[in-house]
Amino acid sequence: MNPNSVEPQSFESKFAVYDCEIRLKFRLIEEKQVLKNREQLLDLLLDAFSYGADEYLESVQSQVEAQELPEVEASPQMRRQLIRLRNLAE
Amino acid sequence: MNPNSVEPQSFESKFAVYDCEIRLKFRLIEEKQVLKNREQLLDLLLDAFSYGADEYLESVQSQVEAQELPEVEASPQMRRQLIRLRNLAE
Repeated sequence: MNPNSVEPQSFESKFAVYDCEIRLKFRLIEEKQVLKNREQLLDLLLDAFSYGADEYLESVQSQVEAQELPEVEASPQMRRQLIRLRNLAE
Repeated sequence: MNPNSVEPQSFESKFAVYDCEIRLKFRLIEEKQVLKNREQLLDLLLDAFSYGADEYLESVQSQVEAQELPEVEASPQMRRQLIRLRNLAE
């Protein structure tokens, strides 16, 4: 047996799939006209939140969770992407 | 009575305070090392989400709401800021 050909048994990918959940509550001063645009509401509010709290924004609650998901529960697309990343890393 | 001194009765501020709530669920492929940084987790995940869905991210759910809040329910700080904005606009 050639030791050079032995793959490490404990090989673990550096990457994983995560189930993520973010919940944000905050109060915002904004122009009424701006928030009437319902299609862009999410982007607008995420932008506002990312600037941080100031005299226009008060954070009320922010929760965040990221749980590693067993690979078999991920979608075929994500599993393929994981395999690609693993092959790149080798 | 001098008509010039009469303030419009229907004067409405262009600005309002909004109660905002964002709820995001998504799946993300990420380096395990990166998501161990719990302090920056929210920023990291918001950044990832804002890039949009691709082979690394699948959106599961995104909810967003923004309700106008009666001004009297806003904090003193926000009410002061509203008054400032209103004075600027006049």
